[in-house]
Amino acid sequence: MIKITLPDGSVREFESGISGYDVALSISEGLARNVLAAKVNGQVVDASRPITQDATVQLLTWNDQEGKAVFWHSSAHLMAEALEALFPNVKFGIGPALENGYYYDVDLGGRSFSQDDFEAVEAKMLELARAKSEYVRKEVPKQEAIAYFTEKGDEYKLDLIDGLEDGQITFYSQGNFTDLCRGPHIPNTSFIKAVKLMNVAGAYWRGDQNNKQLTRIYGITFPKDKELKEYLMLLEEAKKRDHRKLGKELELFTFSEKVGMGLPLWLPKGTTLRERLEQFLRKAQVKAGYSPVVTPHIGSKELYVTSGHYEKYGADSFQPIKTPDATEEFLLKPMNCPHHCEIYKSKPRSYKDLPLRLAEFGTVYRYEQSGELHGLTRVRGFTQDDAHIFCRNDQVKEEFIKVIDLVLYVFNALGFTDYTAQISLRDPENKAKYIGADEDWEKAEAAIIESAHEKGLRTVTELGEAAFYGPKLDFMVKDALGRKWQLGTIQVDYQLPERFKLEYTGADNQKHRPVMIHRAPFGSLERFVAVLIEHCAGNFPLWLAPDQIAVLPISEKYADYAHELHARLMESDIRGIMDNRDEKIGRKIRDAEVHKIPFMLIVGEKEAAEGLVSVRKHGHGDLGSMTIDEFEAFFKKETAESLAQNTVAKH
Amino acid sequence: MIKITLPDGSVREFESGISGYDVALSISEGLARNVLAAKVNGQVVDASRPITQDATVQLLTWNDQEGKAVFWHSSAHLMAEALEALFPNVKFGIGPALENGYYYDVDLGGRSFSQDDFEAVEAKMLELARAKSEYVRKEVPKQEAIAYFTEKGDEYKLDLIDGLEDGQITFYSQGNFTDLCRGPHIPNTSFIKAVKLMNVAGAYWRGDQNNKQLTRIYGITFPKDKELKEYLMLLEEAKKRDHRKLGKELELFTFSEKVGMGLPLWLPKGTTLRERLEQFLRKAQVKAGYSPVVTPHIGSKELYVTSGHYEKYGADSFQPIKTPDATEEFLLKPMNCPHHCEIYKSKPRSYKDLPLRLAEFGTVYRYEQSGELHGLTRVRGFTQDDAHIFCRNDQVKEEFIKVIDLVLYVFNALGFTDYTAQISLRDPENKAKYIGADEDWEKAEAAIIESAHEKGLRTVTELGEAAFYGPKLDFMVKDALGRKWQLGTIQVDYQLPERFKLEYTGADNQKHRPVMIHRAPFGSLERFVAVLIEHCAGNFPLWLAPDQIAVLPISEKYADYAHELHARLMESDIRGIMDNRDEKIGRKIRDAEVHKIPFMLIVGEKEAAEGLVSVRKHGHGDLGSMTIDEFEAFFKKETAESLAQNTVAKH
Repeated sequence: MIKITLPDGSVREFESGISGYDVALSISEGLARNVLAAKVNGQVVDASRPITQDATVQLLTWNDQEGKAVFWHSSAHLMAEALEALFPNVKFGIGPALENGYYYDVDLGGRSFSQDDFEAVEAKMLELARAKSEYVRKEVPKQEAIAYFTEKGDEYKLDLIDGLEDGQITFYSQGNFTDLCRGPHIPNTSFIKAVKLMNVAGAYWRGDQNNKQLTRIYGITFPKDKELKEYLMLLEEAKKRDHRKLGKELELFTFSEKVGMGLPLWLPKGTTLRERLEQFLRKAQVKAGYSPVVTPHIGSKELYVTSGHYEKYGADSFQPIKTPDATEEFLLKPMNCPHHCEIYKSKPRSYKDLPLRLAEFGTVYRYEQSGELHGLTRVRGFTQDDAHIFCRNDQVKEEFIKVIDLVLYVFNALGFTDYTAQISLRDPENKAKYIGADEDWEKAEAAIIESAHEKGLRTVTELGEAAFYGPKLDFMVKDALGRKWQLGTIQVDYQLPERFKLEYTGADNQKHRPVMIHRAPFGSLERFVAVLIEHCAGNFPLWLAPDQIAVLPISEKYADYAHELHARLMESDIRGIMDNRDEKIGRKIRDAEVHKIPFMLIVGEKEAAEGLVSVRKHGHGDLGSMTIDEFEAFFKKETAESLAQNTVAKH
Repeated sequence: MIKITLPDGSVREFESGISGYDVALSISEGLARNVLAAKVNGQVVDASRPITQDATVQLLTWNDQEGKAVFWHSSAHLMAEALEALFPNVKFGIGPALENGYYYDVDLGGRSFSQDDFEAVEAKMLELARAKSEYVRKEVPKQEAIAYFTEKGDEYKLDLIDGLEDGQITFYSQGNFTDLCRGPHIPNTSFIKAVKLMNVAGAYWRGDQNNKQLTRIYGITFPKDKELKEYLMLLEEAKKRDHRKLGKELELFTFSEKVGMGLPLWLPKGTTLRERLEQFLRKAQVKAGYSPVVTPHIGSKELYVTSGHYEKYGADSFQPIKTPDATEEFLLKPMNCPHHCEIYKSKPRSYKDLPLRLAEFGTVYRYEQSGELHGLTRVRGFTQDDAHIFCRNDQVKEEFIKVIDLVLYVFNALGFTDYTAQISLRDPENKAKYIGADEDWEKAEAAIIESAHEKGLRTVTELGEAAFYGPKLDFMVKDALGRKWQLGTIQVDYQLPERFKLEYTGADNQKHRPVMIHRAPFGSLERFVAVLIEHCAGNFPLWLAPDQIAVLPISEKYADYAHELHARLMESDIRGIMDNRDEKIGRKIRDAEVHKIPFMLIVGEKEAAEGLVSVRKHGHGDLGSMTIDEFEAFFKKETAESLAQNTVAKH
């Protein structure tokens, strides 16, 4: 008999040799039907693999990302089987699971493969799936593996086997297809109910340009047809919300080859959005006791030698900037912390002065390869909503709680209400690789865990994921399409205070090192705006919208009244445009809707005569007419509400 | 008979050979008594020089900067005479006038010269001045000049004569002293009534380290004793107001060697000041129809090749920044205009879209030699309150007027009420060196002149001082100590639109080039803050003060009430500190006064019990007690008043 510990902590006894599937069955038949694989002592294996000693067991289903990965890996094998059935001479490279779906690199012997071939492959896959073929694992001696693929004439698999050790080679077979594979796999092909090939591209064998180019076929599969449909709709919606597309349509930002790749130029509307976000956080930070600072965008190389950055990242960074006589060298700043450390050092500090919270919207520059750049989410220059809290060890928890409060305040105001906090701690097996005193780490880790719990955050704890200079907490936020983004971050740092020899005089009149906390609720303004655009599909909360209103005169006759109205609203700090083009009102309304302007104020004869506005709400339609005072009061109320929780318009 | 045209345009006839002094005498005896020199056909000459043909004549007195220069140059000769009387073997280098005073480089044959010697020299100068010796001009053949100084043994004068052409050499003598000198000089030494040696320093002959080091003696003189006293008081006051000193005392900014020379770190109070200034201008700009943009701090080298900047300044700038693989090169941006041109180009523009006014608080970096750096007035990185107006030719004047309005609004709000506009136009003799069509220049120059006059500005027009790309208008501002600073600038530019091939579609459906106007009311935030600090001696207008109030509890017992009061005022957007140190109230008041915090709110038993504050105004003293509401209303009124004209506190 062996003891199986389940995720809820319960322990059950079974005969040695039972499988994950058997364990599931002992719980419920429904669970057993859905088990894709098992996680035994932390390792994902086939649900059918015998378990022969005491173990902790987690049963993986479609609800687990690891379950999905097994499902998609098995789907890659299924696609390979289909391809072999359709194109007998096909050879196979590698076929891994992805975050969404899988791909397989194949050599079709010169035959081209295009979107036109997708349907046939999909049909064949579904046909083979219905056959309910089991995925069978087999351990194979190296000689036998070589013999099999030599016979088959697949030089790619032979190349792979070449790198494997005898005794560690396994084959998986289903139906007529056998693959060199470490596994694990789902029980049988019938789990796969919906199939879609997504894309086709070229890929060099082993990613090396000197090797042959293979055909990479991307696909995705689901256990239910409905899920595929939902996924495709999500993709369609994501495409519509792509921040690069909306950024252009709403005239938020642009790029110029002449300025340089990955260096965004913020257009007037995007700048207004950015300034609103900055202003919002600036105000919240003043209330939370932060002190604003401004530092230059370069620093002497010496500064980064001290911070350790030059040694660690220098070779992969923008090269140093020399003075004309080359006697001095500077670096574009990749982070603001060294500058803030120098501000800390600009005068003696006492324990009474701490915490000192220095905040800066600091624009930093980091080299990224041109192929890695992507809209606003991967850029070479970005503005961090950065702050560094210099505090005593006994203040870490209180400061952490305050930072969490601030981050949640920001998320809520922007309609991000679904988030998880990932707590990254030391690897308890390998404490030597971290700097800082053991007891400080213990205190800091406890402080993070306790603050997250006190704030009622949903947390995931990752051992060994801490930075070498301290533990951290990252916020993973789900957007309106259910996609996860890493946004705010809070990190404890014992290293920089050490490297910069920061000190404060304690109550004991002795010198002590402060702790540093790095934090950024948005992370970077660029990335945050990108996520926000996609989250709200460009329908920004009213308080944030670059243009809040559009004054639309029905004809030139009412231009004077429209001008007066527009000026008056601007005077009341309402942002917006006046559309005095010589166009039909229908066209003006349509254009304002396309630009997602929250309120349209239509003015014609009646409005001009009686001092009214006819109000239309974006995505909702007519709200009737109001006096200007009434509209201002209504607008003020709507703006305030837009700053409250759960406010992102879903239209 | 010859015709003399006077500055007021009047023409008088005189006999040929009369002097400037005679002309003055013909106007009034008082004027004649004060004439220091004459400006004849644009050239400054001795008041006694005969005029032998028709001429325009301006009589220079102490009220003219050129008159002062002659006065101080003559004073240098007087000091030389005194030195020779005291130290017979002294030899002389050069002795020019400065903006304030003069210096003379002398070789004392190894004798040291220090502050201790000043009094004796001053006394001798005054004694010689009272002798009323005339400054006598004499034309001397080169041979005679060489003979004179060979006899005297002055190798420096011989070195100077070496570079002069025969027939162009003049001597000036007064009393027992004769100098090689082009002149002109004041009539006689008795004009000099007050004398002060200021400083002594070393200076290499001809500024060359390989030459002998001479002793440079600085001095200043005045026609009245009272003026010397005023000048010395002004210097004393300027020292107290030095922005580097106040910047440190008020904790506005700092520098760090590790970050780099000339790269200011803005401390919290300085950042608050900066943000207030930015916010103030941002708001005014939105009202004036500007659109904010944000662009990166680097740009590809290509961008600056296009702008022409790389060719013109590249060799004297920070060197290019290379990517790790050195395939791309960027420059730190020295100006924002190329980026703004790229934004202009990001979509097609029509004549209806113009003017387009793009504004950015853009931080730029320009290399300066370390010896040139000075506080915030000469730095390597600074933030321009930059904007570029892209407009049609027919809009230049209207835009110019709007910019002048904005600049004056800014100056007035900051208490700079004494300014002159310097209009820089083409050199009419050399139109070829400017780019852009002749008629556009004429229009633009007329537009600038007309707008300046329509706005009633006091102007100075400088021919030939335009940039090669367009005419400009600079504001010269006088601070509270009467010192002049060049602040705001407005420049027309025909070059960049050409280089960037900017276009708009006109009403005629044809492509046209827009004109660009560069403008910056502050110039740079760094420099402006430096001038502002010195102008108001750190007593910033209330609306701008980093800390507006200080809450000062009399003892720990009233800390709760003080905290509550402070929090409530912060909630009302009043900025300030709470001083809860364990110190006597007298000390707290003294410290708040040192930090020039406009209002001190003292709270003790009575205040806490009755919900009052006891208000003390910086530099004024006690204002009595008020309820918190009363104080808020009073504070609001004072803030609004501080934004009105003429508001800088003189205390």
